[in-house]
Amino acid sequence: MISWKDNLIKIAPYTAGEQPDHKDFIKLNANENPYPPSPAVCEAIRNFDGAQLSRYPNANADTLRDAIAERLGKERDNIFMGNGSDDVLALSFRAFFNSDKPILYPDITYSFYPVWCEMLKIPYETVPVDDSFNIRAEDYFRENGGVVICNPNAPTSIGRGLDFIRSILDANKNSVVIVDEAYVDFGGTTSLPLLDEYENLVVVQTFSKSRSLAGMRIGYAVGGKEIISALQSAKDSYNSYPLDSIAIAAGTASVKDEEYFKAITKKIIDERDILAERLKELGFTVADSSTNFLFAEHSKYRAAGICEYLKTKDIYVRYFSKPRIDNRLRITVGRPEHTEALISALREYRQGVAAVTDRH
Amino acid sequence: MISWKDNLIKIAPYTAGEQPDHKDFIKLNANENPYPPSPAVCEAIRNFDGAQLSRYPNANADTLRDAIAERLGKERDNIFMGNGSDDVLALSFRAFFNSDKPILYPDITYSFYPVWCEMLKIPYETVPVDDSFNIRAEDYFRENGGVVICNPNAPTSIGRGLDFIRSILDANKNSVVIVDEAYVDFGGTTSLPLLDEYENLVVVQTFSKSRSLAGMRIGYAVGGKEIISALQSAKDSYNSYPLDSIAIAAGTASVKDEEYFKAITKKIIDERDILAERLKELGFTVADSSTNFLFAEHSKYRAAGICEYLKTKDIYVRYFSKPRIDNRLRITVGRPEHTEALISALREYRQGVAAVTDRH
Repeated sequence: MISWKDNLIKIAPYTAGEQPDHKDFIKLNANENPYPPSPAVCEAIRNFDGAQLSRYPNANADTLRDAIAERLGKERDNIFMGNGSDDVLALSFRAFFNSDKPILYPDITYSFYPVWCEMLKIPYETVPVDDSFNIRAEDYFRENGGVVICNPNAPTSIGRGLDFIRSILDANKNSVVIVDEAYVDFGGTTSLPLLDEYENLVVVQTFSKSRSLAGMRIGYAVGGKEIISALQSAKDSYNSYPLDSIAIAAGTASVKDEEYFKAITKKIIDERDILAERLKELGFTVADSSTNFLFAEHSKYRAAGICEYLKTKDIYVRYFSKPRIDNRLRITVGRPEHTEALISALREYRQGVAAVTDRH
Repeated sequence: MISWKDNLIKIAPYTAGEQPDHKDFIKLNANENPYPPSPAVCEAIRNFDGAQLSRYPNANADTLRDAIAERLGKERDNIFMGNGSDDVLALSFRAFFNSDKPILYPDITYSFYPVWCEMLKIPYETVPVDDSFNIRAEDYFRENGGVVICNPNAPTSIGRGLDFIRSILDANKNSVVIVDEAYVDFGGTTSLPLLDEYENLVVVQTFSKSRSLAGMRIGYAVGGKEIISALQSAKDSYNSYPLDSIAIAAGTASVKDEEYFKAITKKIIDERDILAERLKELGFTVADSSTNFLFAEHSKYRAAGICEYLKTKDIYVRYFSKPRIDNRLRITVGRPEHTEALISALREYRQGVAAVTDRH
């Protein structure tokens, strides 16, 4: 006899960065922005007319699409809004990857790609990055059902230039190529200029990192009208209204405050370069980052041990016990005081380990 | 040669109620609440600390789950939160309907069910309601891969009691039975009391109607821990963070204002009964409604014509050009002044048609 339990979904849940309950900790484990969103965002929320909420939101968040389109020199129909870039990416997989051939993406990259493939039964092959964690364009010069490149890549932090993406596009005129640019605003190179040449390109960006709006869930795709229309169909078949009315208002206010956006991304880039130097002084190898985080390995100490020690000091960084990267830490760039606290905890760790080593 | 266009999703988009751009119209076509959300909701939004938005939201909206659990006498693990009840329902289909046997639901019901089945490749059979648009429980006493009952049903507005749902549950111990209660707060009978007896039951409710929060996207499921855990897995595999931090705060404030909730649902129920009487006086047949809308057919005039005429008077009601219901209007209950405007426009229509008929 078949029970209802036999027909439940079987799937392993995604594990996000830890979110400790208490307040007094330094959270460098989820690549969040250490600065608040633009004051214009806070004002838009404060001034939002709550009575409006009894109505459904505009189904496609057109006000926000228009603001993004204007900023990027595009049209409304080139922009698709989703409930965070996870939503946009999952819908993109559904909208674009309906081939029997496997889609391709790097073995070391955003951990949600295989989850969506499993969920949507999309065949896929992961392509190993090289020993320095670089994606090799030529690995993608072969038949496939689609390509996904996270650029700059996560958790490696490494960004590549336009020629790199262009070479992948030139070799893949019959596949959709998704470039996931969650971290691009911290000094990466966006592929947006290539959209005029390649109608099979989709660029996905988010408000979660550079716009300090992780708590608001806003992501978007930019692409040609045909590709954006397919994404719209995939969305409409699932949920008519993904973005709520306050998110639309808050996001629009954010896009319009270019000055604040530039100021905080610059602050984070500057702090990243300082943090990288300080880590190197302590014996870390640090990949060149185009993101708001660093991917670091110590010459002597295991990443897992460092990560556990930092927790005892109420500093949370991200450690992945996964092949190839299980001796690396992913450390979000915080404010200067977070850098100080982290560096001083790492110094203590080194001294503590040295003391133990001396005793035994 | 395969083009990237060949692998795009092929799916027809859902058509929602029209949303005219101008402001001066009476919108009775989307079953929205004519009253604003609780003042406590507006206050929670005004007082929301925008700086918090740089952090990801609590992944499962636990504060809001706890508030709902407390109101319903349940525990946190009995509640699943989604981005509107469309999100909860779509995830439920994915989480529960993994059988080769067809799932069953009425032929006249919420139009998104077949869309999700097509999207998720779930086999399904629609079961005709009777000529008075009643769902017959005994039609569901047969082998299936799951059952979905919208109760009260939409767009028919007809609600059924606990014995009806119980008889379906008794005959379906090996399937998950979803009861979609989007409209239950307007005088319907909730199946929540059955949860203690049937662990294969899931009840889905929304903040969009009775809580005036359509613009905020909050829906939830209530069920046994095992079934809610499957839903959680389905969500986690798609998007870690569905509800944004402001929605969590606003929703929690709404749940805690039971007095306001009772007051506005009562106002709408009272107005519904008045509107039904007025429509009957004008020659409409009106189904007994347990919702915030009426399902009405005129003895002489075609629904499509009435609907078009009302638009010229800036009054929007919903008309479905679908088999069996193509002479019915779905009219959302508004405020008393909306009832007046609607009734007076319908009187004019009758006079206008009579005049034309007399002339020719």
